[in-house]
Amino acid sequence: MSEFSPGLEGVVAAETAISEVDGANGRLIYRGGYLIEDLAPVVTYEEVAYLLWNGNLPNETQLDENRRRLAAGRNLNKAARATLLALDPATEPMDVLRTVVSAQGASKALTKPTLDEAIALTAIFPTIVAATYRRRQGKEIVEPHADLSHAANLLWMMEGKEPAAERVHWVDSYLVLLADHGLNASTFAARVVASTGSDLTSAVVGAIGALKGAAHGGATFAARTMLDKIGSAENADKWLHDAHAQHERFAGFGHRVYRTYDPRAKILREMAKTAAPELHRTAARTEELALQILHEAHPERPNATNVDFWASVVLTGAGVPKEMFTCIFATSRVAGWTAHVLESLSDLRIIRPASVWTGPQPGAKPLQLAKR
Amino acid sequence: MSEFSPGLEGVVAAETAISEVDGANGRLIYRGGYLIEDLAPVVTYEEVAYLLWNGNLPNETQLDENRRRLAAGRNLNKAARATLLALDPATEPMDVLRTVVSAQGASKALTKPTLDEAIALTAIFPTIVAATYRRRQGKEIVEPHADLSHAANLLWMMEGKEPAAERVHWVDSYLVLLADHGLNASTFAARVVASTGSDLTSAVVGAIGALKGAAHGGATFAARTMLDKIGSAENADKWLHDAHAQHERFAGFGHRVYRTYDPRAKILREMAKTAAPELHRTAARTEELALQILHEAHPERPNATNVDFWASVVLTGAGVPKEMFTCIFATSRVAGWTAHVLESLSDLRIIRPASVWTGPQPGAKPLQLAKR
Repeated sequence: MSEFSPGLEGVVAAETAISEVDGANGRLIYRGGYLIEDLAPVVTYEEVAYLLWNGNLPNETQLDENRRRLAAGRNLNKAARATLLALDPATEPMDVLRTVVSAQGASKALTKPTLDEAIALTAIFPTIVAATYRRRQGKEIVEPHADLSHAANLLWMMEGKEPAAERVHWVDSYLVLLADHGLNASTFAARVVASTGSDLTSAVVGAIGALKGAAHGGATFAARTMLDKIGSAENADKWLHDAHAQHERFAGFGHRVYRTYDPRAKILREMAKTAAPELHRTAARTEELALQILHEAHPERPNATNVDFWASVVLTGAGVPKEMFTCIFATSRVAGWTAHVLESLSDLRIIRPASVWTGPQPGAKPLQLAKR
Repeated sequence: MSEFSPGLEGVVAAETAISEVDGANGRLIYRGGYLIEDLAPVVTYEEVAYLLWNGNLPNETQLDENRRRLAAGRNLNKAARATLLALDPATEPMDVLRTVVSAQGASKALTKPTLDEAIALTAIFPTIVAATYRRRQGKEIVEPHADLSHAANLLWMMEGKEPAAERVHWVDSYLVLLADHGLNASTFAARVVASTGSDLTSAVVGAIGALKGAAHGGATFAARTMLDKIGSAENADKWLHDAHAQHERFAGFGHRVYRTYDPRAKILREMAKTAAPELHRTAARTEELALQILHEAHPERPNATNVDFWASVVLTGAGVPKEMFTCIFATSRVAGWTAHVLESLSDLRIIRPASVWTGPQPGAKPLQLAKR
């Protein structure tokens, strides 16, 4: 029995060729051995999903086919649509996503995860997310547009009009950058669920639940909320010093694995200049000061900006409201979740760790029952 | 970085005082240090759930209060009821459970798990499971009966009439025996989901998904299916030898942790004599021969009967149809899932393990894109 490592930090839980977070060198490698900074500027989400699922970038025919299949999977089935409408429009968007994905993937028998299912699940996320957003605003749901790309159709269904090309580009870039990230908690949750021989929908529903947490997918929302509170580049100094004095944690800094600047954050920081110039100014000043304060307080810690910080700025520029940030994160990461589950099938073994007993030994406490 | 242990076998992933599986000695210890064989014959499910949540057995007042709160939580809310009705009655029962629990627990904001929520979630399982069963048969849903115990009300809602006391006893005993079991895969899934700061419903929904797999909760169904195929004590010899010759795995034997007879199986085996005398005869002969064959084939392996084998016999005797076995398992284990999540809050740390990269290094493969 190995020693207890809280949070399984540094404990190897899988071998994988889907992606690699090389934290020491600040590198993110996607399937096939591609560095994120080489891949992201030149591919669309449809290509990256194909790469994560299949192990190679698609040629023209394969890409057309993948686009076609993703576009064909954009409609909610009867159970999922009725489930969506059964939920109060004010329901937390991630709760809607968790419930409606569960309904959409409900089937009559337990089936082994397949690539077809991975495509179908990935295809349906934008539809649920956009419908959730529309319902929150009391607006009619917009039906999917089969001719638009994954990112463009998402914005189309959210807004009911064709989005400008540059906004599609920012959303698509975000989806590409967040599509996979090693054994992050939600991906690991998906693998744990699938490890028992369960189905792909169950794994993805488990992953949605994990992503929802503030320490994971919720971090982008937290970063944007902090930037909202700061309000302007001019206010950053006072706000950050006050917050630090009150032992508040700065949202958007620090990561379990990266010891240097997150390569995705670097790309998003650059993109944010055009996507959201005003917020970029606030964020850049905030980053500069936050890193300074954190470094002074903990010179031994790597206090690099994480992806959530700059993602919150780019998504804002793309017109995504912050209450939908975690759902959009899920819309990206579902490609990685499903790729990991499909990979795990080749050597499926139930993930069942050990625990250390901290309770009393048998006999220490009398077995005293309530009167019958 | 530690060495890779597939399935995290032997890797300590948590400290816990909820339960301890002492596999080497064939002991299961519940919270407070109680051996399952001491506890199970004298407590009800309501007492065990209280114990797992609170750390001590309830006195009379506490037990009354826990019963009252569990009984008060038996009604589906509006969203959950509409979601249930939105699903095809032929939907896999665990998919219904996953989806309707997700709807029942959907809320307007992310909340930290509480004991109240644990009680509410545990209270609602029998309602969903029984309604699912009724709908499968094309029968009207039976509303919960507030005056009945957790186990009795479950049978009441499944059948629409008050069940005999001995059948309630068998179901209740099953619920007590299966309520927790260390860091099994579904409990671990719940802890992984909750580790990000997510909510209790998300954790429980993830756990339902994990339990669904054939290597976990699905094993009771598989054991009963095997016994059905065998058909009689007289047929066991031929069937098992034929199956073994064809390299079929025997359902209901072997466990990751136990190296001796599962103490819960021992209790259920005894109970099965009265609960299902005919099936007990078939099962006893099957067990005898299966252990013999397995021992001859793999003398080095501990091939003890697991809980699923005898649980399938007792549940059959209690009148539970086999397609509902996994759901009844979930109805028991939800107490353990929620207790583990509540325990984990005291030192919450994101569960984010490491992985080993098996893909190509950057630069090994050219970045060849589909034509634009």
